[in-house]
Amino acid sequence: MRAAVMPAPGAPIEVRDLPVPALEPGAVLLETIASEVCGTDVHLWRGRLAGVPYPIIPGHVAVGRIAAIGSADRAPASGSSATAPADLEGRRFEVGEVVTFVDVHGTCGACWYCLVARQSTRCPKRRVYGITMGVADGPSGGWAEAILLRPGTQLLRLPPGLDPETFVGGGCGAVTAFHAVRRGGVRLGDSVVVLGAGPVGLSAAAFAALSGADPVIVVGAPADRLAMAGRMGAALCIDLDRLPHAARRDAVLGCTGGRGADVVIEAAGVPAAVAEGTTLCRDGGVLVVAGHYTDGGEMALNPHAQLNRPHLEVRGCWGSDASHFEGAIRTMARHQGRVPWGEMVTRWFPIEESGAALQAVAARTLLKAGIRPTTGSAPGA
Amino acid sequence: MRAAVMPAPGAPIEVRDLPVPALEPGAVLLETIASEVCGTDVHLWRGRLAGVPYPIIPGHVAVGRIAAIGSADRAPASGSSATAPADLEGRRFEVGEVVTFVDVHGTCGACWYCLVARQSTRCPKRRVYGITMGVADGPSGGWAEAILLRPGTQLLRLPPGLDPETFVGGGCGAVTAFHAVRRGGVRLGDSVVVLGAGPVGLSAAAFAALSGADPVIVVGAPADRLAMAGRMGAALCIDLDRLPHAARRDAVLGCTGGRGADVVIEAAGVPAAVAEGTTLCRDGGVLVVAGHYTDGGEMALNPHAQLNRPHLEVRGCWGSDASHFEGAIRTMARHQGRVPWGEMVTRWFPIEESGAALQAVAARTLLKAGIRPTTGSAPGA
Amino acid sequence: MRAAVMPAPGAPIEVRDLPVPALEPGAVLLETIASEVCGTDVHLWRGRLAGVPYPIIPGHVAVGRIAAIGSADRAPASGSSATAPADLEGRRFEVGEVVTFVDVHGTCGACWYCLVARQSTRCPKRRVYGITMGVADGPSGGWAEAILLRPGTQLLRLPPGLDPETFVGGGCGAVTAFHAVRRGGVRLGDSVVVLGAGPVGLSAAAFAALSGADPVIVVGAPADRLAMAGRMGAALCIDLDRLPHAARRDAVLGCTGGRGADVVIEAAGVPAAVAEGTTLCRDGGVLVVAGHYTDGGEMALNPHAQLNRPHLEVRGCWGSDASHFEGAIRTMARHQGRVPWGEMVTRWFPIEESGAALQAVAARTLLKAGIRPTTGSAPGA
Amino acid sequence: MRAAVMPAPGAPIEVRDLPVPALEPGAVLLETIASEVCGTDVHLWRGRLAGVPYPIIPGHVAVGRIAAIGSADRAPASGSSATAPADLEGRRFEVGEVVTFVDVHGTCGACWYCLVARQSTRCPKRRVYGITMGVADGPSGGWAEAILLRPGTQLLRLPPGLDPETFVGGGCGAVTAFHAVRRGGVRLGDSVVVLGAGPVGLSAAAFAALSGADPVIVVGAPADRLAMAGRMGAALCIDLDRLPHAARRDAVLGCTGGRGADVVIEAAGVPAAVAEGTTLCRDGGVLVVAGHYTDGGEMALNPHAQLNRPHLEVRGCWGSDASHFEGAIRTMARHQGRVPWGEMVTRWFPIEESGAALQAVAARTLLKAGIRPTTGSAPGA
Repeated sequence: MRAAVMPAPGAPIEVRDLPVPALEPGAVLLETIASEVCGTDVHLWRGRLAGVPYPIIPGHVAVGRIAAIGSADRAPASGSSATAPADLEGRRFEVGEVVTFVDVHGTCGACWYCLVARQSTRCPKRRVYGITMGVADGPSGGWAEAILLRPGTQLLRLPPGLDPETFVGGGCGAVTAFHAVRRGGVRLGDSVVVLGAGPVGLSAAAFAALSGADPVIVVGAPADRLAMAGRMGAALCIDLDRLPHAARRDAVLGCTGGRGADVVIEAAGVPAAVAEGTTLCRDGGVLVVAGHYTDGGEMALNPHAQLNRPHLEVRGCWGSDASHFEGAIRTMARHQGRVPWGEMVTRWFPIEESGAALQAVAARTLLKAGIRPTTGSAPGA
Repeated sequence: MRAAVMPAPGAPIEVRDLPVPALEPGAVLLETIASEVCGTDVHLWRGRLAGVPYPIIPGHVAVGRIAAIGSADRAPASGSSATAPADLEGRRFEVGEVVTFVDVHGTCGACWYCLVARQSTRCPKRRVYGITMGVADGPSGGWAEAILLRPGTQLLRLPPGLDPETFVGGGCGAVTAFHAVRRGGVRLGDSVVVLGAGPVGLSAAAFAALSGADPVIVVGAPADRLAMAGRMGAALCIDLDRLPHAARRDAVLGCTGGRGADVVIEAAGVPAAVAEGTTLCRDGGVLVVAGHYTDGGEMALNPHAQLNRPHLEVRGCWGSDASHFEGAIRTMARHQGRVPWGEMVTRWFPIEESGAALQAVAARTLLKAGIRPTTGSAPGA
Repeated sequence: MRAAVMPAPGAPIEVRDLPVPALEPGAVLLETIASEVCGTDVHLWRGRLAGVPYPIIPGHVAVGRIAAIGSADRAPASGSSATAPADLEGRRFEVGEVVTFVDVHGTCGACWYCLVARQSTRCPKRRVYGITMGVADGPSGGWAEAILLRPGTQLLRLPPGLDPETFVGGGCGAVTAFHAVRRGGVRLGDSVVVLGAGPVGLSAAAFAALSGADPVIVVGAPADRLAMAGRMGAALCIDLDRLPHAARRDAVLGCTGGRGADVVIEAAGVPAAVAEGTTLCRDGGVLVVAGHYTDGGEMALNPHAQLNRPHLEVRGCWGSDASHFEGAIRTMARHQGRVPWGEMVTRWFPIEESGAALQAVAARTLLKAGIRPTTGSAPGA
Repeated sequence: MRAAVMPAPGAPIEVRDLPVPALEPGAVLLETIASEVCGTDVHLWRGRLAGVPYPIIPGHVAVGRIAAIGSADRAPASGSSATAPADLEGRRFEVGEVVTFVDVHGTCGACWYCLVARQSTRCPKRRVYGITMGVADGPSGGWAEAILLRPGTQLLRLPPGLDPETFVGGGCGAVTAFHAVRRGGVRLGDSVVVLGAGPVGLSAAAFAALSGADPVIVVGAPADRLAMAGRMGAALCIDLDRLPHAARRDAVLGCTGGRGADVVIEAAGVPAAVAEGTTLCRDGGVLVVAGHYTDGGEMALNPHAQLNRPHLEVRGCWGSDASHFEGAIRTMARHQGRVPWGEMVTRWFPIEESGAALQAVAARTLLKAGIRPTTGSAPGA
């Protein structure tokens, strides 16, 4: 089977031929249909994340068809999770079904974070496909013809009508955005500002609008991404490149009763955006920090003027779990006719062109690059 | 090894000699130090719970010394939980340590309730020692010389200074009460009424007082339990047998500014207590229903007068998880000099007298019965 | 000025000619454009509410044009609220503007409920136009050519494009429903069941759908109200008259993963609906009780099966405040093209036919009756 | 009547003789018993706050005896707050009672912050005794023989047994700390770090301990303040001057399972303390920023490492309202035998020595300075 491999930070992406792995009981071999180049993949290539076991196969979010399931007919040892893979309602998966999976897996279910804080995204044993698993773990990322899913990985069916390309159009960014909107506690009628018009920001705008937020304002650039923001549900799009900060603030105050937004979601990944977020939020409002999955450096913040006096609440938002995948998938299936998630993939690349796809995303010359093992043609082709 | 067995509802408790079980990897054999007769055991004996695989060994909460650990030195299959048992910080347990365990185990970590609602107490796969596990599962309750803990069962060390008898004095009731106080959101300065002066109610009063609640009021009977309530932290004890409902309500209003309590915790197990709870709670307050672990029948409630107009919040509170065990144990260790949990066990019984212990609890002739395999003498002996 | 007066419970509605009141500083005289017959008016007529100073002019929610404002140019005494009426942003109102008002007023801002619980709907000093104010207080309800608004009454502008008839189509029920949806904490993707297809239930379905709830299920009758529910946003409408309880439950479980709804909103006003609500809610879910503004009697509830074991949360929901008016009005203005609030008024009546309007609502022969001082013709006429 | 006046920033405090003011209906003349020098007074003297109408009489928190009440026997205009002053239960105050008052008053009860956000501390019309009211408003601060309280000011009785000196020992800092502990959501068993050992930090430690927090850790200096922290309820006191940051962090991790505290309360007023707070908090924990009532400049923060990845929640905490006064006073009354609030006043000064008191607080040569019009001797004298 072919796979695009990132050998080390900065090294060119290579296409390698890997052996098809054997399946332990409860494991799943997924024939990849579609994956994506996520901003995290750019960070991986730049060597910005710690604990990455290069060489790796990127593509932590993907959709595939179940090609095989490791036999699990023996009664599993009690407490063991080597059971047949099943959905959230306990229905077993069958060969041939089209599914995605929660990239974070191996959560221990036994540590303080899992059991007391109920915050599995901080479990020290968790592993992430395409990021903290490498070629040595078998084919464990979506830039490959197949993905080996360990026993206990949570699979989710794509609902009828949600095709793989549309889901991957949202992809990792949509799941992250769903979490951010939940974390912000967005309610019917809340005013929401989203900072950043990349995949996370665009999906956050969509989910906020579907939550009844009014208005939904996106601050970002360049113009074509803002146009997309409007189509995703934003009522007001503010061009970061054309309006200075004071004017951006005036625009937000102007449509929020002079107070600022109830909820601001930072999805820009630029430290200064977090500081700006505090100035766009109303007193007593909520600022969700969801764009800093890698270290982009420091910002200056005035605790009196930007935290204490405005009685602000700043909520970091890390990782996603099965609840966010479930919610994002179901919402995308329900509203795909209304929200153009599929169009967020500007271009699809075959495995052989993964390196080019990565370069394009790094250079921001396209909004989002999809990876399809079988073909690089347009969605639906 | 000897064990007290409940063969069927209504049948006399028998002492049987069971084989010492073999240990699969990750399992633990616990040499029982102390267990208890919980109200649930009375319900089990009356046949009031569904899905109980009689014959069973009751005693779902217990303390013991680790006698053996099933070898788990082979690298476990990925995703498998057959790893060496470890505490919440990941430190392995050793033979000889004194521990208790979370009675609910086998939670799947893969269903909607585990992953989306993050509410493992509703996982359909969970099992409970001493309740939904029977003799056929090996020695799986505390009324026995040893308990077989399946791989994946969460063990917790008793902190230095918290002796087994004191912990079992609180026991299941303390863990349930800790959950109820958390569920009620009790804060510094809140007025709290606890309905019921049994093991759950007394511990709820203690935890509420330790949370800074003021005043803490207990409504119950008979007089000796109320005296105990005062020693656990209640500022006002109202004798259910001596004051009619209207007078009880007047007493509560009298020390809550005429409004009723901020939080009412029902721990009585009598349907009428829930209805009474709505009348003791202030408008906009919270009523936690924590006493109905078995079906005690119906009550009449007026939705206008008791729910809608008073803007009340009624919160059912089911089961306990590792977070409640962890919190209860730590709090008991910290405050055991101040709160007499150990004295809640009125009498300790040897395994051979488990039947008598059960009868005494059923007849309410003692507050709480402890079970100690080795001796029936007074605590500390 | 003419007004429809309810002289006493059960007595026929009379049209009386009242003097135009003088205005104290800060008071407002509103020339009524539209008001409504609310379910509460039926209860008032049946004598089911305590503390009503008959004779009264019903119509607690209304829209009008500001005819006069009591002079307030003198610098008001400090702390006094006899200032010129202003909107939530502090902009003064002018003669000629079209506004509605928060029916609850006179909240003291000084009692425990106002200041500590921040729950002004339980302030003992609050008064309600059309309910706890009567003819002796001047024209104080919407079934009249003009309404006298006391100083301190909160006025709200109808936003551009929201015509009075559309707002009154939602009316009191929409504001109550907005509060109920907020109180239920409805989030994007939550499944929601609404019990009751009257004005509150229909608006609750609409607001839940606008909050991204999926699916939204309405249980009610008769068929024409259910048809309206579908147009308001419900994905599934269950006819109470045609399906027995068990089948209704199966239908709800069938589209909620077998678990029941995340949030159930009771808007039926029938005690049995609250009990049924507990059976349609998932374990750990939320049941909002919003339909019992008057005493409809008792229901039987099993605390074990319906509260404790399912870890349910039941939240009474009383009254509405300025935040609910503000949110409901803004949401209705934003989505009026999509949600047919205006069509909820089946027929408009002139003041002279207020009695007939009341009878029709009492007999449930129409969904909602509007009152228009000037004409009884169709909306928009 | 004599009053200590701050004529302008930097100018020496002067004692002036002011006329005893006339009372409008509902106003109260309070004969001052005790007031304090708060950190805010130092900021006022340094000219660090905007909108201060110098000359002012500092002392925004004080206790006094009611000397006179402005006649309010005429039926007040409806909606007017010029009613006789009453407590939260509606009981009228009488001449001779010993009371304190909520320093923030004049809240409009009509703006978006008052009515929609229910966050009166951000009401633009609010005024604060001793800070935004000056000599031109009459005697409006506690450094005077009497204080003029405007109609609508919320008065609170000191409960039996809570003497004025003990309450002022806590004073403004205790009320602020009560708010901060509430804002942090501190629960039984939570680990809490307090940064700062001044009046706010010490009371925060006390309230956290009374909430059942365990452990309570105070980081501050110098040694005598830390000794006081231990007496207020801290289990661990870390000397800021003797341990570098890394060692402080190790100490906190060492007693919080290696994770950091559940809740960190910043009460230091130094920007760097906020940044340090993020490093002492566990992943998913809460950091309350309560020490920055004046502009102390900026800090550097890394959004990735200090907000996003640790899934942190940072909550600014501004001002206090009647609920915090009520809770703080009641809690102090209940626990004054256990917590030495009264001893926090290192020395009492007469009005004539207010300037010296201010200098001592500015120089941090004493923990807290009290002001007593009648005498400068030791508490209780």
